[in-house]
Amino acid sequence: MADKRNMVLGLLALPNGSHSAAWLLPGALDGASVNIDYYHRLAQTAERGKLDFFFIADRPSVRVDRMEVWSRAPTYTNILEPLTLLSAVAGVTSHIGLGATTSTSFFEPYNVARQYGSLDHISGGRAAWNVVTSASNDSARNFGLDKLPPHEERYARAREFVEVVLSLWDTWEDDAFVYDHEAGLSYLPEKFHPTHHHGTYFKVDGGLNISRTPQGHPVIIQAGASETGKALAAETAEVVFGPSASMKAAQDFYADLKGRLARFGRDRDSLKIVSGISIVLGATEEEARAKLASWHDYVHPDLARVWIGEDLEADLTDLPLDAPVPEDRIPTNARMHKAYADEIIAMVREGLTLREICRRYNRSRAVLCGTPLQIADMMEEWVSAQACDGFMLSPLTLPGCLDEFIDGVIPELQRRGLFRTEYEGRTLRDLLGLKRPANRHVAELVDA
Amino acid sequence: MADKRNMVLGLLALPNGSHSAAWLLPGALDGASVNIDYYHRLAQTAERGKLDFFFIADRPSVRVDRMEVWSRAPTYTNILEPLTLLSAVAGVTSHIGLGATTSTSFFEPYNVARQYGSLDHISGGRAAWNVVTSASNDSARNFGLDKLPPHEERYARAREFVEVVLSLWDTWEDDAFVYDHEAGLSYLPEKFHPTHHHGTYFKVDGGLNISRTPQGHPVIIQAGASETGKALAAETAEVVFGPSASMKAAQDFYADLKGRLARFGRDRDSLKIVSGISIVLGATEEEARAKLASWHDYVHPDLARVWIGEDLEADLTDLPLDAPVPEDRIPTNARMHKAYADEIIAMVREGLTLREICRRYNRSRAVLCGTPLQIADMMEEWVSAQACDGFMLSPLTLPGCLDEFIDGVIPELQRRGLFRTEYEGRTLRDLLGLKRPANRHVAELVDA
Repeated sequence: MADKRNMVLGLLALPNGSHSAAWLLPGALDGASVNIDYYHRLAQTAERGKLDFFFIADRPSVRVDRMEVWSRAPTYTNILEPLTLLSAVAGVTSHIGLGATTSTSFFEPYNVARQYGSLDHISGGRAAWNVVTSASNDSARNFGLDKLPPHEERYARAREFVEVVLSLWDTWEDDAFVYDHEAGLSYLPEKFHPTHHHGTYFKVDGGLNISRTPQGHPVIIQAGASETGKALAAETAEVVFGPSASMKAAQDFYADLKGRLARFGRDRDSLKIVSGISIVLGATEEEARAKLASWHDYVHPDLARVWIGEDLEADLTDLPLDAPVPEDRIPTNARMHKAYADEIIAMVREGLTLREICRRYNRSRAVLCGTPLQIADMMEEWVSAQACDGFMLSPLTLPGCLDEFIDGVIPELQRRGLFRTEYEGRTLRDLLGLKRPANRHVAELVDA
Repeated sequence: MADKRNMVLGLLALPNGSHSAAWLLPGALDGASVNIDYYHRLAQTAERGKLDFFFIADRPSVRVDRMEVWSRAPTYTNILEPLTLLSAVAGVTSHIGLGATTSTSFFEPYNVARQYGSLDHISGGRAAWNVVTSASNDSARNFGLDKLPPHEERYARAREFVEVVLSLWDTWEDDAFVYDHEAGLSYLPEKFHPTHHHGTYFKVDGGLNISRTPQGHPVIIQAGASETGKALAAETAEVVFGPSASMKAAQDFYADLKGRLARFGRDRDSLKIVSGISIVLGATEEEARAKLASWHDYVHPDLARVWIGEDLEADLTDLPLDAPVPEDRIPTNARMHKAYADEIIAMVREGLTLREICRRYNRSRAVLCGTPLQIADMMEEWVSAQACDGFMLSPLTLPGCLDEFIDGVIPELQRRGLFRTEYEGRTLRDLLGLKRPANRHVAELVDA
């Protein structure tokens, strides 16, 4: 069960925010997506608010279709690469966790183990890796493939990938590097445990060239509402991005995923579920709603049609904006982002117009409008009701919505004893209340 | 011809220095190799000396044979990953270039283009990529291979790899991102140029998801004394690590490589050759030599035999230390590091003992002992004689030898007008006097 005092709060730092017209909204900085000083300020703001982690989502490709439309919503088009970005941010922060997405479909396990391990050393134990299998054919084509492998194959590869990375992170026992000047030995060879993995997707025979990291290994994050996704998360994830479209859906997901942990000998507290939310604050709820409504006018109709159509996996570009979407446009099954498609399908069945769907759609994240007190009430209610252990904040605008949250909601959460007033420790595991994992080779010796 | 006022100076920042017992020498910090604060101080010292670039060599593996010997010389065993390291260093420096080695044998071109491009943005135009093909079977085994591909194949792959990376770096024209709020367009689609590469080793169909970088693209560094290496360097390199075992050898290499540039329509100044040197300073030359000699006692005989044997590609572990090495131990041809083997073979033919060879051997870098004035004389002479455009400093101890060089030799070089007293610009290209390359797609339009 979640400890109310330790509500988990992460920040999803999309360049100008998660609103589909974020870059056009008042206060948005042109070129923020490749401006490291801008990211430094965001991370420092998040740290001022004592958030648990700062998170960079990723997509290793440019959308090459309909560029005249995507130019209106350039979220992943021109971005700093996450590992280099977070290594830079590490130097201007001291306590906040640093997480990023890296796909198991396009990278080598050795490099991923190494770069996240290195980030964990550089940051003094604040690294987290969000394991994704990717959902973009554009990305696949940058890495020698014609299109993505099928969902099941991507997950099989992901499972093997994580297995290899975890093994590499245990290459060296914690006390392997002794720097014994008298004996002239820098490490004890018997504390080195190479990986010998000959699997379906990867073959690795060797050890990682970096000592065990401050956290034992970086924190493992996952998302994925599919059955395969939940199965993998129950086995390996320590933080999971859960749904938030409704409290009921979140509670069901929470109970389901937490219930699976025992099968893997895991404690319920060894995995934290955070619900993605976007918060719009105002002096009154009406003011907050009016603010949100005013932002919607920045979304071009061409973008709305393409954006909703893409997540639904249906072509809606011929439809009028102000008429209901015909139900026969709903595809028989969605292959990529099931949670996104489900959210849209529900609105289509409600009879909403395309324009209305676009206004309401927030990619499986709840959009909450209200005063700081109202928002704190909702957050408290969700955690109390075991809908989540905390939240992944996805500000619609940056730095605007973030500043307002840090200055408005955080003090209220602290006043209620729901959130920390000082950082509890030096590593992300300390903040999340996650145990530092023992090295498997040492554990084996203890068991023997 | 080299401009004497613009002698190029880079720093090879091996963790404790390049001496084979560096970690045991007085002043060495235990665990420096994973200590980001230590690297910050090294880079800041190099920047205080107005050096051109700070450089991190790499090897993506741990040596798994004879670990009881390599524990005595742990250079690449426990290290921060170079791209994450340099991204962190970017934040504590402002002018010095930031270069690293990344192998074309074990990485994806898209990821390399992206991470170095990101580093170039993060650092404000200071990134450099050292293209290597790797020479370690241990590394190959971490990436699904049983051993390295043959030399020619590695270079064919390297050539194709560089071609793809350069193409990806030209994905966006410099003025592609307009952030036109009135039109609602963040970029102009016609200024996007995807790569469509279907080659022997790589298939990439897409564009890089980062705007053209401050330098146009990161500086390309190469080494490699082989014919294939020189051919590739003449076509694509902008900085080359040249030999320095003798001035004659360096002059021959310099004339050869510079002479090849015209074939590719390149100016002689578009490629800078730096000779690797290690400098030991003293109040007198004798004092410097005595200091160097004292360090040699820290090298364990087991290490000496294995180290020399490995670079010669011969097993010398049965040989006594204080007798000449039999000439029949020289292998018929060396496949990995030709320059290293040649240096050892010359000493074997001289009749030196294994202990003597070990004392003198410095992996194709000259070791210069003397006073600051003597060292400045030698450096001036080499550049004047067109043996090189400058030097890759490979301090035997760190921070010791670096501090002494910055405080002793740099002021003398500046006094002679051979080296800058202030940084000339904001990018590494500004420092090196290299032109910012035009985007190939814009150049084509101009030509048409």
